[in-house]
Amino acid sequence: MTDSPTQTSDERPTDADLQDPVFRSGVTALLGVLAYGELKSFFATVEDAGMAPGVGRKEAMAAFAVREFEHYQALSERLRQLGADPQRAMEPVVDAVDEWHRRTKPKNWTEGLMKAYAGQSIATDFYRECAQWVDPESRTLMLEVLGDNEQADYVEAQLRDAIAADSRVASTLALWGRRLVGEAITQAQLTIAENDQLEKFLVADGSGSGMSLEELSELFTRLTDAHKARMETLGLTA
Amino acid sequence: MTDSPTQTSDERPTDADLQDPVFRSGVTALLGVLAYGELKSFFATVEDAGMAPGVGRKEAMAAFAVREFEHYQALSERLRQLGADPQRAMEPVVDAVDEWHRRTKPKNWTEGLMKAYAGQSIATDFYRECAQWVDPESRTLMLEVLGDNEQADYVEAQLRDAIAADSRVASTLALWGRRLVGEAITQAQLTIAENDQLEKFLVADGSGSGMSLEELSELFTRLTDAHKARMETLGLTA
Repeated sequence: MTDSPTQTSDERPTDADLQDPVFRSGVTALLGVLAYGELKSFFATVEDAGMAPGVGRKEAMAAFAVREFEHYQALSERLRQLGADPQRAMEPVVDAVDEWHRRTKPKNWTEGLMKAYAGQSIATDFYRECAQWVDPESRTLMLEVLGDNEQADYVEAQLRDAIAADSRVASTLALWGRRLVGEAITQAQLTIAENDQLEKFLVADGSGSGMSLEELSELFTRLTDAHKARMETLGLTA
Repeated sequence: MTDSPTQTSDERPTDADLQDPVFRSGVTALLGVLAYGELKSFFATVEDAGMAPGVGRKEAMAAFAVREFEHYQALSERLRQLGADPQRAMEPVVDAVDEWHRRTKPKNWTEGLMKAYAGQSIATDFYRECAQWVDPESRTLMLEVLGDNEQADYVEAQLRDAIAADSRVASTLALWGRRLVGEAITQAQLTIAENDQLEKFLVADGSGSGMSLEELSELFTRLTDAHKARMETLGLTA
């Protein structure tokens, strides 16, 4: 990972920082969001698998779902190691994550693919930036979970096939992708605003750590730009 | 395992029997039914997990689903070892298994529990009897898959809690359980009747192996009786 413009590797948190209860509860809040996101993705991917044409695709998607569940288990285990109750750590984000899934229910296999692709990519970009703010062991786990991108590769290939097979699919998917990301950013902003521990952790309060509100806004712009670039490589105008 | 009345352990198939193409295709047909059943159970258990109250129960059910998917993968691998294409081996039973799931769609968490409990128990009883007809390595795998009964124990405990919490649940569940088993036996009989390779394998054609039709009918009676006994230990009249 390259250093962020706002924090050099020297300034990255160490294990010693876990002694600070504010830092520690920020880390558990962040791991809680990621854990609940993986659990919900497991359910969403199994639904996609159910819509997949043919046993081969069903099996591939189900296998990816299983890996999301394993990520969820590993993140829960890390939360327990940090002395946190995983269920309590996830609780504050349940509504926002559920709401995102409710508002972006795919109607068919292709919409499910796009949701998996756009949703996972944008989440990966976001958490990869956040990974630098946590302790080394949590960071290693986060990067391991985020680095598991075989699913994104598979889903991207399936999307390309679907677009190549029917050019009308492209315009529908471009609109759908834009909506997925818009809803994701709305829910991410709400999550941070409504979750004190997460907000204190990510947003600078003058104590020297975290991003300024301007930097947070820039982060969301980077996420949107990266999404647009991905849509363009798929031949879609986002 | 105790010896069946119709076949002693001396008469059990050996690896050498796999040289016989009729025996081999019977084994792959049976493993195909079991594999597809596990794949469908994976999807059904994830749906149950979605209906489960609370993250703890959702997580427990999702973990059981993951194990069903692992069983499916192990059975597919065994089919490949036997030179069979897993998808082709599953193909002849897709309709019957799908039909059973369509006809027995649980409306809520408790119905889902009962379906998981009755469905898995009766399938386990059936396959355990069939396991003696296959080659040693396939038998070991089948017994390993069937011996993974933590889910049945968990589901039974959850059912007992649900019945204890609301006595009206008992009469609904007794009826539901009876329907589940009736539909299962119907679909199992159709599966055997419509699947030549399976029928030749399980039902004696005078060549000295397999059950007589009378023995097959007795097997279904044993399955129904075992179901009734399980319902009674739950305090339900089946």
